[in-house]
Amino acid sequence: MGRPVTLFTGQWADLTLEDVAKKVSDWGFDGLELACWGDHFDAEKALSDDSYVKSRWDILNKYNLKCFAISTHLIGQCVCDPIDQRHKSILPARIWGDGDPEGVRKRAAEEVKNTARAAKKFGVSVVNGFTGSSVWGKLYFFPPTSQADIEVGYKDFADRWLPIMDIFKAEGVKFGLEVHPTEIAYDIVTSHRALKALNDHPNFGFNFDPSHFIHQFIDPVMFINEFADRIFHVHVKDSRVQLNGRNSILSSHLDFGDHRRGWDFVSPGRGDVKWDQIIRALNRIGYQGPLSIEWEDSGMNREWGAQEALKMVRSQDFAPSAGAFDAAFSSKS
Amino acid sequence: MGRPVTLFTGQWADLTLEDVAKKVSDWGFDGLELACWGDHFDAEKALSDDSYVKSRWDILNKYNLKCFAISTHLIGQCVCDPIDQRHKSILPARIWGDGDPEGVRKRAAEEVKNTARAAKKFGVSVVNGFTGSSVWGKLYFFPPTSQADIEVGYKDFADRWLPIMDIFKAEGVKFGLEVHPTEIAYDIVTSHRALKALNDHPNFGFNFDPSHFIHQFIDPVMFINEFADRIFHVHVKDSRVQLNGRNSILSSHLDFGDHRRGWDFVSPGRGDVKWDQIIRALNRIGYQGPLSIEWEDSGMNREWGAQEALKMVRSQDFAPSAGAFDAAFSSKS
Amino acid sequence: MGRPVTLFTGQWADLTLEDVAKKVSDWGFDGLELACWGDHFDAEKALSDDSYVKSRWDILNKYNLKCFAISTHLIGQCVCDPIDQRHKSILPARIWGDGDPEGVRKRAAEEVKNTARAAKKFGVSVVNGFTGSSVWGKLYFFPPTSQADIEVGYKDFADRWLPIMDIFKAEGVKFGLEVHPTEIAYDIVTSHRALKALNDHPNFGFNFDPSHFIHQFIDPVMFINEFADRIFHVHVKDSRVQLNGRNSILSSHLDFGDHRRGWDFVSPGRGDVKWDQIIRALNRIGYQGPLSIEWEDSGMNREWGAQEALKMVRSQDFAPSAGAFDAAFSSKS
Amino acid sequence: MGRPVTLFTGQWADLTLEDVAKKVSDWGFDGLELACWGDHFDAEKALSDDSYVKSRWDILNKYNLKCFAISTHLIGQCVCDPIDQRHKSILPARIWGDGDPEGVRKRAAEEVKNTARAAKKFGVSVVNGFTGSSVWGKLYFFPPTSQADIEVGYKDFADRWLPIMDIFKAEGVKFGLEVHPTEIAYDIVTSHRALKALNDHPNFGFNFDPSHFIHQFIDPVMFINEFADRIFHVHVKDSRVQLNGRNSILSSHLDFGDHRRGWDFVSPGRGDVKWDQIIRALNRIGYQGPLSIEWEDSGMNREWGAQEALKMVRSQDFAPSAGAFDAAFSSKS
Amino acid sequence: MGRPVTLFTGQWADLTLEDVAKKVSDWGFDGLELACWGDHFDAEKALSDDSYVKSRWDILNKYNLKCFAISTHLIGQCVCDPIDQRHKSILPARIWGDGDPEGVRKRAAEEVKNTARAAKKFGVSVVNGFTGSSVWGKLYFFPPTSQADIEVGYKDFADRWLPIMDIFKAEGVKFGLEVHPTEIAYDIVTSHRALKALNDHPNFGFNFDPSHFIHQFIDPVMFINEFADRIFHVHVKDSRVQLNGRNSILSSHLDFGDHRRGWDFVSPGRGDVKWDQIIRALNRIGYQGPLSIEWEDSGMNREWGAQEALKMVRSQDFAPSAGAFDAAFSSKS
Amino acid sequence: MGRPVTLFTGQWADLTLEDVAKKVSDWGFDGLELACWGDHFDAEKALSDDSYVKSRWDILNKYNLKCFAISTHLIGQCVCDPIDQRHKSILPARIWGDGDPEGVRKRAAEEVKNTARAAKKFGVSVVNGFTGSSVWGKLYFFPPTSQADIEVGYKDFADRWLPIMDIFKAEGVKFGLEVHPTEIAYDIVTSHRALKALNDHPNFGFNFDPSHFIHQFIDPVMFINEFADRIFHVHVKDSRVQLNGRNSILSSHLDFGDHRRGWDFVSPGRGDVKWDQIIRALNRIGYQGPLSIEWEDSGMNREWGAQEALKMVRSQDFAPSAGAFDAAFSSKS
Repeated sequence: MGRPVTLFTGQWADLTLEDVAKKVSDWGFDGLELACWGDHFDAEKALSDDSYVKSRWDILNKYNLKCFAISTHLIGQCVCDPIDQRHKSILPARIWGDGDPEGVRKRAAEEVKNTARAAKKFGVSVVNGFTGSSVWGKLYFFPPTSQADIEVGYKDFADRWLPIMDIFKAEGVKFGLEVHPTEIAYDIVTSHRALKALNDHPNFGFNFDPSHFIHQFIDPVMFINEFADRIFHVHVKDSRVQLNGRNSILSSHLDFGDHRRGWDFVSPGRGDVKWDQIIRALNRIGYQGPLSIEWEDSGMNREWGAQEALKMVRSQDFAPSAGAFDAAFSSKS
Repeated sequence: MGRPVTLFTGQWADLTLEDVAKKVSDWGFDGLELACWGDHFDAEKALSDDSYVKSRWDILNKYNLKCFAISTHLIGQCVCDPIDQRHKSILPARIWGDGDPEGVRKRAAEEVKNTARAAKKFGVSVVNGFTGSSVWGKLYFFPPTSQADIEVGYKDFADRWLPIMDIFKAEGVKFGLEVHPTEIAYDIVTSHRALKALNDHPNFGFNFDPSHFIHQFIDPVMFINEFADRIFHVHVKDSRVQLNGRNSILSSHLDFGDHRRGWDFVSPGRGDVKWDQIIRALNRIGYQGPLSIEWEDSGMNREWGAQEALKMVRSQDFAPSAGAFDAAFSSKS
Repeated sequence: MGRPVTLFTGQWADLTLEDVAKKVSDWGFDGLELACWGDHFDAEKALSDDSYVKSRWDILNKYNLKCFAISTHLIGQCVCDPIDQRHKSILPARIWGDGDPEGVRKRAAEEVKNTARAAKKFGVSVVNGFTGSSVWGKLYFFPPTSQADIEVGYKDFADRWLPIMDIFKAEGVKFGLEVHPTEIAYDIVTSHRALKALNDHPNFGFNFDPSHFIHQFIDPVMFINEFADRIFHVHVKDSRVQLNGRNSILSSHLDFGDHRRGWDFVSPGRGDVKWDQIIRALNRIGYQGPLSIEWEDSGMNREWGAQEALKMVRSQDFAPSAGAFDAAFSSKS
Repeated sequence: MGRPVTLFTGQWADLTLEDVAKKVSDWGFDGLELACWGDHFDAEKALSDDSYVKSRWDILNKYNLKCFAISTHLIGQCVCDPIDQRHKSILPARIWGDGDPEGVRKRAAEEVKNTARAAKKFGVSVVNGFTGSSVWGKLYFFPPTSQADIEVGYKDFADRWLPIMDIFKAEGVKFGLEVHPTEIAYDIVTSHRALKALNDHPNFGFNFDPSHFIHQFIDPVMFINEFADRIFHVHVKDSRVQLNGRNSILSSHLDFGDHRRGWDFVSPGRGDVKWDQIIRALNRIGYQGPLSIEWEDSGMNREWGAQEALKMVRSQDFAPSAGAFDAAFSSKS
Repeated sequence: MGRPVTLFTGQWADLTLEDVAKKVSDWGFDGLELACWGDHFDAEKALSDDSYVKSRWDILNKYNLKCFAISTHLIGQCVCDPIDQRHKSILPARIWGDGDPEGVRKRAAEEVKNTARAAKKFGVSVVNGFTGSSVWGKLYFFPPTSQADIEVGYKDFADRWLPIMDIFKAEGVKFGLEVHPTEIAYDIVTSHRALKALNDHPNFGFNFDPSHFIHQFIDPVMFINEFADRIFHVHVKDSRVQLNGRNSILSSHLDFGDHRRGWDFVSPGRGDVKWDQIIRALNRIGYQGPLSIEWEDSGMNREWGAQEALKMVRSQDFAPSAGAFDAAFSSKS
Repeated sequence: MGRPVTLFTGQWADLTLEDVAKKVSDWGFDGLELACWGDHFDAEKALSDDSYVKSRWDILNKYNLKCFAISTHLIGQCVCDPIDQRHKSILPARIWGDGDPEGVRKRAAEEVKNTARAAKKFGVSVVNGFTGSSVWGKLYFFPPTSQADIEVGYKDFADRWLPIMDIFKAEGVKFGLEVHPTEIAYDIVTSHRALKALNDHPNFGFNFDPSHFIHQFIDPVMFINEFADRIFHVHVKDSRVQLNGRNSILSSHLDFGDHRRGWDFVSPGRGDVKWDQIIRALNRIGYQGPLSIEWEDSGMNREWGAQEALKMVRSQDFAPSAGAFDAAFSSKS
């Protein structure tokens, strides 16, 4: 269809933005989805230093790249999560502070608000990210877990995110939650529940990423159909179930890339996502935004992979029909 | 194998023949299978006006295109069908006339005879098409339907088509029925029954199109194996089953392209047809004719699709082995 | 759960009601669902002759059998159908009359109204049956069939059935359409469409019969979930898909019982219906009515089969849990 | 084979031991596996009050029931778990105390030691149970989770359970961990890891329960094969995957019994466990202990279910062959 | 249907005929299929000693058992096989003689002829058995194996078995080859080839045994359909594919009963044979003979198994319908 | 990853080495794996004539081709096999001699030793090949076959191959058995048994070829995982299961290329081998050698096929990741 294809820079944050921009431009990408970490995009600097925003655009323009969204997965995660040492490794020092959990959560929430403000200033209308969840760890209902126990988590989510979403509304920016295990919404049912907790806030929707549904055995197309008007952004990421009677779908506390896991992320086109069906569904709902490759495959060289993925997307992103066909023939004599 | 690849013009009849010819020539096709509607091929004109036949070849030659078959699906359909208003939309006014069903059927039968004569004059030896059926609507045997009830339909088919086939024989032209729901033959069993009704008339055979078998769960290769010497022409068309526990394989009175249907046509190579197996089977029976892409996909731009389909066919149409292999090695020292 | 198990007498109409009653009583059934044909139940007689109703109950009581519903599939079919000779074989002479289609349809509609009145008089609150359909024969959308073409059929259905349903409402009787190919509703989508055509008439619902969904590849449980408050009656009937690459799911104009068909009815418990899941779904929606075995299997002796089916139902119709379990353990010390 | 069939009393703790004993004796069970909660078995009383042990045996003997194992799932769970309010609901007040997490864990550990002592005194050689886990909540490796993060959990497990296991060894009692999500071992890989953490302590093994593997897509027979000499006890419990493209295998924070979950426990014989294969594997490894039905099905009446399950086990627990067959025939003339 | 159910005594030849007869009579079998080894049936004695035949019937009659066939698998195997030491173990000394292969084959051929004569004298019209094959060992075509190489085997088979079959014809006895790996016919294609090699000899047909098709992935019903008039006898035996990605369908030179094999025989009803479909197919072709259980399961006690199998057969051997059903209803009013 | 891609010349031995070299060089291959037959590589000449070795390299160098291995499948096969006329067709006259089986086997064994010596002289460190097997023909255990019967075959294998392997060790050359039906090792279990028979001789390992596992239903990745340090060489060859209920996986004594077989070899990429998973497994074990296309497809022109296969390999042979990913993001800000 000619949707722009961007690369999400989250997995390339060891490189400078300029290095990433040069590479993806050479490979033929149309743009970048900037991660709010590494040196790619810093919301605080964007707000405090007008030249910073320009410096980002200068790099993008130099390589003829567009930008439609920035992403704040790491900080967003800390808004609702119980905080432990793992969070320290994904946060800037100013957010971590003394590491007191409630303090971390509050500083993270303020930073997400600032990210909305920075997005507005930067000129993009979508911020993608995570929300964290205080009840994810109670996934399996033992010790016996009641709906009241779970509802506490959704209440906490609403308390923390409604004020954030009001800033987004004020700035005219949308937040796209990437539905994902560890988040307040990780499947279709919990996505409805999260929306309901926020009273269907108009600025809250989803960064659709099918890779997180595959290992849950959810058909990603069903997600698109149920949340047609809340698909604010799309990630092209893939995963594959690798079950053999011994591997567990819960993955055995094993690292990504370990073949004894029950599933893993793989380069887009090599997994179980049926991209033809995704494109048809996106065409059906009229999604006009970018297709943003979030490239992750622990068994493949990333430069090979990113180029292969781009080629795959170009071959799949076809335009819908101009007009409906008759059953078999376009017209009579 | 280097079989010629043609495009069936039925789904492009909103364009002039010249427009279609120019496009497909640019895309790399070898020829066209002309629909007997639109301005592509008119049997009556071909018989009455010698310059008409030449005008068609002039266009084809201008774009270096071949033609192996013409197709009369719309008029053929009306030979046996109970006639209703839907048929009016697919017929020229001179065939529809006053719309009296038996009159329509008789005029359609004469037109199919003329199509054989026109094919001869035009220099092609195959006419593809439909036959219609007076018993298709009794598909599900309720109210209780006896074999006698069905046999009436096959008798009617024979009464109408044997005279037609005698003209084909006289002209040295073959008729290739596209086995298809709504026709007298829509699967393997009914194809045998149709052949038997015509006493295995030597000029009656099939335009093999696997897309119509997929949603019936028939293996198209079995059709090729059972009717090896009756495969007069081949359509490259694809379809896909899209069942999810809610969709019906009977498709719920929904339009093609509606994702709630249980199956749909898709661009060749994107469906459930296993083309590698089709090519092997065609090689096995020694089919030497064209592979004619009948392109239909309600969810895709047709220009994108036709080019993609051509590329798919070229990648699949391999030549058979020159000689059988030994089990593992071609020769000894 | 101890739901009553009845036998639908439609497939036993060659026997007198007394003969059927004696057999099923011996076999251990709890009751009968009376067909409105054979000598089992005659709506006209019930209305005109007070002793007739008593005579039916006398037989039922003699064998200690209950009755919860009567069924008018044959006459109901003729309300919307295009009428042909097959309908003559399923109608009493007084309804067939001179066979003029519109006359047949009108007399059938009146008879269905009378059936509601007779049900009231007989003391049952459910009439099951078919509706027929003027558009079933247009199942496959060729010649090109528009939604307008189909809508004509639903309009016709509403015009004929709304007056009928008003009688049902007046009598306090419900009509349970057995969703089935050849009817105005044959799957989930068309069931919604039929309900909408009747403006969700409160007396119109369904006689749930999973056997008709199996060969359409629809999960019967989804039907129960979507129409939870419209399940007025339940048929226990089974079918089986028998595909092998050669058989067509459309069944090749072959008789029931022919192994070359793509599917067939089989004795309950021997097909593809997952009864455990059906019972759980019925428990979930609180269905309290009978489980009525409609026994049909062209390859099995019906007396063997009916008894086997009864045994199957008794083994599956378990009660729901008295209380929800904790995740693993009912209580603590 | 005639292995004794027992009922695990954990899901019946709302009834007195005498009530349970009477029921299961009537139903034909051979014995009980006593839960260490409700009034079924109290380790503390068993140690402090000699008459208590006798009182339990008196009830069992009165109903002609055997006992091979006692089970301490609830208290065991608290040995390694992060403690929250849910744990309070499964613990006796004396263990919960002031609810300080480390205090709870320590008291739970002491209680498990006492359970070993009580088992010895009661005359059974197996205690089944859970271990809890401090790292279960880190199941999905985001925020990025290292093997070092996980190893902390196994170290904690070893620190707490090695002293416990030494008591078991001293008493001559075995501990059978029921491998299960939320425990230190929940699949094959983590079971190896747990054993390794305990230096393959000879008294630590498994209460094999296949129901917890089904929804992880692990073949339970593989577990038996890999831990043949560590199968100390066997639970007969079943579960079923119920995926439809919308349900998540992670179960959407929904209660057991909700049909929107991706899997659920069902009465033994109604789920995906292949009992024939389990019995063959147990025969192969020479397991001679009881088959203990842990009955749990949120959609079924438990009294119906327990009896049905017993019947299923009796029909499956066949003896192995006395001698190997020749390929086809037992001997020659 | 009430076909007689017999037990094939081949796997019980360690017991005397009287011992077997007593057991199976107690279990409820209708008769025995006697193995021509052990003390069950000795063709030589039957021909030379008139009292021997009577002695066999005396035992059968004492236990009220019928006999429809005798079976000569072991000696039949030696007619065409390359002979090695394994054959010695399945032959009586008088057939083995000095073990010279051609001598063994000739003596075995004479014994099979005598078996036909003995069957006639004994009063049964079917002898089941094996044929052996000189080309079975060339199963995988490496070193490169030509059709000429294989044809040698079929020629050898014809040369040895045509004279045998002429004796069968003269005696009015049929030979039922149990199609099986290691025989001249082991699947559908080779069965046709074997029949052709014998010029469709009228006395040569098959002892249908579905267990040998399961691990070849052949649908047993297809065999019945293709050889409808050659099904002389039926074995009820079952097998199961047990593949897990590591097991080989070729079974790794492992003993029956080893779980690392890719398939194994299991007690009838516990394997992959779909008995419902087998019974329907036998009903369809009008097979009226016995259902003879050949019981073999290396993992199960045979006495348990034989009784379980009998129960399974009784539950499956239903009669066909007395008359065809209409689509849905047996008759009209 | 940039592994070199070679073509195994076994199926091209009708062409001179020069002809083959020219073709594959034009197509873009990196090298050849030379068959020790045709004029491609002659071990005897290599040892006796120093110019011969040079002549081979001259051709290879002329076309810029590498060589990493030579292959002796045909002669290796004769070391353990029972010898029949089929072997004559695959042997040079000097090895066949008078055809006395034991003489043939001994000469073949000597030739394999010389092949090791020639490889050393030629400068390659791997010889691939077959071993033959004296017990392959006893594949199906009837007549009853004991483990002692099979062990004879492994003893024979060890007796013949241990002396050969000692020469390999002395020469510093490895032998890669292509695990394959008809060989002493044809699956995972028998590969372990073969290794054990040779006391895990360090110079004996495998030429991994997944095509031989597909029709046994073995996951090729499991082979790689179990024999990670014994994968000396890799063949890229593909096969496909083509079962339809009538075809037998044992292939009915039918030629390769016959569509009635249950499986067949097909051009790499068109079969059931999942190359992505193979490459990941080879990356995991650190295999650094060539990927050698052994091209065989009885239904395809070999020149088309070899080029297509090369393209497939290049698209699949990706490099592993330089570093492990974090769960989702490469680094923090």
